[in-house]
Amino acid sequence: MSLDSFLLFFEALGVIAFALSGIIEAARKQFDLVGVVMIGAIAAFGGGTLRDVLLDRRPFFWVEQEAWVWALIVAGLSLPFFFRARHIEFTEKAMMVPDAFGLGIFAAGGTHIALVTGQSPMIAVLMGVITAVVGGILRDVMVNEVPRAFHDHQPYAVIAFAGGWLVVLLSYLQTPEYVDVLVAAIAMVAVRLVAVRFGLKLSPWRLF
Amino acid sequence: MSLDSFLLFFEALGVIAFALSGIIEAARKQFDLVGVVMIGAIAAFGGGTLRDVLLDRRPFFWVEQEAWVWALIVAGLSLPFFFRARHIEFTEKAMMVPDAFGLGIFAAGGTHIALVTGQSPMIAVLMGVITAVVGGILRDVMVNEVPRAFHDHQPYAVIAFAGGWLVVLLSYLQTPEYVDVLVAAIAMVAVRLVAVRFGLKLSPWRLF
Amino acid sequence: MSLDSFLLFFEALGVIAFALSGIIEAARKQFDLVGVVMIGAIAAFGGGTLRDVLLDRRPFFWVEQEAWVWALIVAGLSLPFFFRARHIEFTEKAMMVPDAFGLGIFAAGGTHIALVTGQSPMIAVLMGVITAVVGGILRDVMVNEVPRAFHDHQPYAVIAFAGGWLVVLLSYLQTPEYVDVLVAAIAMVAVRLVAVRFGLKLSPWRLF
Repeated sequence: MSLDSFLLFFEALGVIAFALSGIIEAARKQFDLVGVVMIGAIAAFGGGTLRDVLLDRRPFFWVEQEAWVWALIVAGLSLPFFFRARHIEFTEKAMMVPDAFGLGIFAAGGTHIALVTGQSPMIAVLMGVITAVVGGILRDVMVNEVPRAFHDHQPYAVIAFAGGWLVVLLSYLQTPEYVDVLVAAIAMVAVRLVAVRFGLKLSPWRLF
Repeated sequence: MSLDSFLLFFEALGVIAFALSGIIEAARKQFDLVGVVMIGAIAAFGGGTLRDVLLDRRPFFWVEQEAWVWALIVAGLSLPFFFRARHIEFTEKAMMVPDAFGLGIFAAGGTHIALVTGQSPMIAVLMGVITAVVGGILRDVMVNEVPRAFHDHQPYAVIAFAGGWLVVLLSYLQTPEYVDVLVAAIAMVAVRLVAVRFGLKLSPWRLF
Repeated sequence: MSLDSFLLFFEALGVIAFALSGIIEAARKQFDLVGVVMIGAIAAFGGGTLRDVLLDRRPFFWVEQEAWVWALIVAGLSLPFFFRARHIEFTEKAMMVPDAFGLGIFAAGGTHIALVTGQSPMIAVLMGVITAVVGGILRDVMVNEVPRAFHDHQPYAVIAFAGGWLVVLLSYLQTPEYVDVLVAAIAMVAVRLVAVRFGLKLSPWRLF
């Protein structure tokens, strides 16, 4: 598999993961079908779009490959039947798993894209953080909750930040590019899932 | 009337409609004069500005024709006297009427603009939806409510979506451009007003 | 001191002031360290970034001088110790002081930047208002509150608006550029602090 098609496939996974997190979140809030699809779209495309606006990259990936948009609409229309058939509950926990995958994939991919376009390491890492967290922040703002990324006291953005530096480090070590991205993403997803599973907490700032 | 001046006049109607919806919403929340003008501006210019950022069109229409900005300030200053003199109440229903007009006008106009700049039909329709719903979403987020577009279970974004495809269809049929836009806009406003009047509902997603 | 280095130093003060306002706000809400740093960053960089997106200026100042990002992280890590050692309380009032400085500095600086890039006076003044208020609006939206700029009935955006016109006026009078900016900023900070101190209120719109 070429690097380009690897990255495309990889970004696809992130889009799917975040779209799923948005769909679950909106369904929990009893939104209607249109609201569910829109929250899914915002969660999936929000971070990457802001990154591309900040880096002045055009056209956006979802404009270039509009298949994403069709896929999202089909998912929004078909998933309810699937979820109902399987008696899957829309719990906050159910949302956490795709969210963790989206976090790792988008942070690694976003950092990589920014490095390739010639940004300095610090800015590239920040772009990775933005790619990874902005979709989720917008998703939470839209359902009128304080964004989890700021508030739930579990490591989230900090994982994207550390993982981004891992991408930078691996790229200095001249590892093949898809290895950089893949290793960092897997590490981030693993750390996030462990943190959620065992309830690891960051202390509130004033007690820090 | 030339096509360009028609489109300008048409966009003007949409700006006025959404500005009015924002002004009513902010007045209902007891905002001060400045807050009312700012929410009006966000509702009126938010959707078109995001569309232009996404399509990379500069300068924005409100930068090119700053008369809009002056008009909005004058409206914010003078409307209170008008409303008080007429004993018009700021009810949620009062907000729905200009909102419906803004929806139809911006969805049709936004789709048209994106088609003209060479976007594919699906992306053009999405740009129409974004133009039409983002102003209202920002308006509702700013007053700390869950955006009605996601949550009130009445068809809103889906009308913009279907109406956008009507613009696309009419443009394939080689109708004069202002007919495309006008017919689609009128259809959308009518459907929205009927939906609000008779309380048509979309079912929540999980019961879908 | 040259004009450029004056403006850089001046913008630095605004970034620090707004970052501090965001840090205090997030600490009041018991956010964790990462949330505090992120809210600080959003408050500090949000307004200037939107202004630059609207004016199509690239790269953003925080991309060009990434020292800002490092400084913010260090501040987020070290300030808790400082605040605890001094027994400084995170009250809403404590937040108001840096917020007032950020308001004056960013409104004057943003108006100046837009004038230099050739915008008309009205658009330049609006860009100053956007630079000054958007960071604070995003900060408040992120902690799930109605933005103070709209709602607290104290003059805020209107000070940025009037102060922007003062910059325009002074620039017509051919005063040296840093005098324009400095005089207008000092005037705005003073008016805002007086308004907060003595509880000056704008009346709600419907009683206007």
